[in-house]
Amino acid sequence: MACLFRRAHVVTCAGPPDDPLGVIADGALLTDGDRVAWVGPGADAHAAAGALGLVVDDQVDLGGRLLTPGLVDCHTHAVFAGDRAHEFALRAAGASYQAIAAAGGGIVATTGPTRAASIAQLTALTLARLERARGFGTTTIEVKTGYDLTVAGELRLLDVIAAAAAATPIAVVPTLLCHLVPAERRADRDAYVRALCEALVPQARGRATSVDVYCDDGAFTLAETRAILVAARAAGLAVRAHVGQFADLGGAELVAELGGLSIDHVEQIGPAGIAAAAAAGTVAVMLPGACVQLRLPVPPVAALRAAGVPMAIATDLNPGSSLTENLPLQMWLATTHYAMTVAEAWLGVTRHAARALGLADRGVLAPGARADLCAWDAAHPAEVPYHYGAQRPSLVAIAGQRVELAPVA
Amino acid sequence: MACLFRRAHVVTCAGPPDDPLGVIADGALLTDGDRVAWVGPGADAHAAAGALGLVVDDQVDLGGRLLTPGLVDCHTHAVFAGDRAHEFALRAAGASYQAIAAAGGGIVATTGPTRAASIAQLTALTLARLERARGFGTTTIEVKTGYDLTVAGELRLLDVIAAAAAATPIAVVPTLLCHLVPAERRADRDAYVRALCEALVPQARGRATSVDVYCDDGAFTLAETRAILVAARAAGLAVRAHVGQFADLGGAELVAELGGLSIDHVEQIGPAGIAAAAAAGTVAVMLPGACVQLRLPVPPVAALRAAGVPMAIATDLNPGSSLTENLPLQMWLATTHYAMTVAEAWLGVTRHAARALGLADRGVLAPGARADLCAWDAAHPAEVPYHYGAQRPSLVAIAGQRVELAPVA
Repeated sequence: MACLFRRAHVVTCAGPPDDPLGVIADGALLTDGDRVAWVGPGADAHAAAGALGLVVDDQVDLGGRLLTPGLVDCHTHAVFAGDRAHEFALRAAGASYQAIAAAGGGIVATTGPTRAASIAQLTALTLARLERARGFGTTTIEVKTGYDLTVAGELRLLDVIAAAAAATPIAVVPTLLCHLVPAERRADRDAYVRALCEALVPQARGRATSVDVYCDDGAFTLAETRAILVAARAAGLAVRAHVGQFADLGGAELVAELGGLSIDHVEQIGPAGIAAAAAAGTVAVMLPGACVQLRLPVPPVAALRAAGVPMAIATDLNPGSSLTENLPLQMWLATTHYAMTVAEAWLGVTRHAARALGLADRGVLAPGARADLCAWDAAHPAEVPYHYGAQRPSLVAIAGQRVELAPVA
Repeated sequence: MACLFRRAHVVTCAGPPDDPLGVIADGALLTDGDRVAWVGPGADAHAAAGALGLVVDDQVDLGGRLLTPGLVDCHTHAVFAGDRAHEFALRAAGASYQAIAAAGGGIVATTGPTRAASIAQLTALTLARLERARGFGTTTIEVKTGYDLTVAGELRLLDVIAAAAAATPIAVVPTLLCHLVPAERRADRDAYVRALCEALVPQARGRATSVDVYCDDGAFTLAETRAILVAARAAGLAVRAHVGQFADLGGAELVAELGGLSIDHVEQIGPAGIAAAAAAGTVAVMLPGACVQLRLPVPPVAALRAAGVPMAIATDLNPGSSLTENLPLQMWLATTHYAMTVAEAWLGVTRHAARALGLADRGVLAPGARADLCAWDAAHPAEVPYHYGAQRPSLVAIAGQRVELAPVA
């Protein structure tokens, strides 16, 4: 099955440093099964198909529209039950995140409903979120556990992620998240951390591809984060961490030292953490929606850029600080509130987001990549963040299969 | 034709000061033709219909969903051709709004394509925007002229607004906007302002319901604004102004003195302007998307609240600083970036927005109001801004007629 996407303005996201979007005007793209076979000028498409021995049995005329890689949402907490709209209203009325948490809100307010929900209920809730994400162009999504906080419960959430992944065409990347120490374990938090390292993390092998730790004030200390991430490495899992959302505890340096994939949030990251990430090639994952909603300072984007740290952008989809599946909207927040360029915003939801997940085969349109594609009713890459809150792709393909878009709900 | 909307969580937006949303849990609403006939507890609905002599010939079971007034977008520049995605990219790369304007960008970059487009082309572009707005729950929308800048051309844009209004079920409120002095008239700007006062404004009578002036650095001075708004009052038109987006020129005091409907943007408004607006009952229209996009300071919301100035929220839909039809998203920006409460955000897109347009018959669910309704897949008013960038109404009715939602475009 070869398909020709023609009359496209192809945004490959595979260009060189001085033109990273690698736009091919009047371009075309050939898929062969689930892979991209060729990308180039439209005039060369039929010759290319012939040279590759491809029989084009399907064609899509994009009429000059943008064709981009499918979007990669590299940081979500999509498995949870209940909602925290009440906390949202309290925060709008002036309460701080910390004050809400102290009053029984925050992450622990989601653990009750999540623990009480069945696997089938949680799977249905998660799937509905994945379908909405697909409507906004997401073709690969990372999904973290983290709202149960017990060993057995966190493994159950990995089962939920697997069940949801089996029921959607979106590629799902499961992450085990050590989110915080629950109130009932605060008195013996050392034993809790040992249980995470010795019982939970080893059992996540084969069910999660990475382990994430929330290393911040009110969550895990740097020493605890080190213990968990070292256990993850020993179990053969990739590592990442939430760092510097409220305070810089040194988590970025730790992740860099361990060869981790990403450091996420980074509002408060300092020069040492930036230098360490740059040296190690760690991706900084930006979550501008949560940053705006919690009224946090803007991350040091200029310093990250100057140091050459790859920057990704994600929704942070979660019930506390960022309830949205809309990844293109995060591109608007990144370009306006974070002062990232349009090219940085696109790489942030494609090439760099794929790198944050350790996936070398997507986030770009190039031969051999997965045929994950979005077409947009736009003529310039800037138009997607520019028409903010309203842009959705007009066509999505995942692994070469065109999929129906989610209803407007 | 009477219709019963039952099993609804009715957000009337008609409550008293200590409970302005006036939510009726387990509520119901009766429409009679294009008007709301009754709102109250669901258990009383059939008795109410009987007492009013209504034969209920249609029923909608909302299954506990929120039922709210249709949204009122009280500040848009929806009539234009061309786009300014290139400027958006420049701004993301660090250029200022003023630098872009000095290099030939800004408002004047839209006048060329707008002047060159036919009435039919402009009507089609405007209609597409109105349809997208309807998909986000907007049932009444203000639309300004302002991208032609000649007397004949601005009148032509009023014709476009009338043509678009005739082709959509949304209620359209046309405004004549004096946007700035075009480059070719800078040498004789006094004569230009006289032409606006003596030729343009009088001819807008019967075609626009209000006159708006952009009173700010780089646009019209306070004296010019006064001359235009006095001419508008003399022509029997309501008045409003863009004030304090970049500098406080005293426009708020002027609008209050003239009994105007609204002062819009207000990032830089000072205590005298706030006091004048409070005394006159002028509505402050907030445009948080444009504020974020241009990286302007947040308006003095706490001072406006303390003074009792009614606050509305709008999209500012325009090609330069806020290209979106998504009014619920502005509620998220208002609650998070502007620290407005959830109740203020709802009143801002309903009751107070209707007041900013001088419309007493909408923006609330109460007997006699237009039957403009939205149902939302949500159980609490906070859920609409909370599920940001992803919430759309599941049902919209305009003047009692249920309408198909716009496609996901």
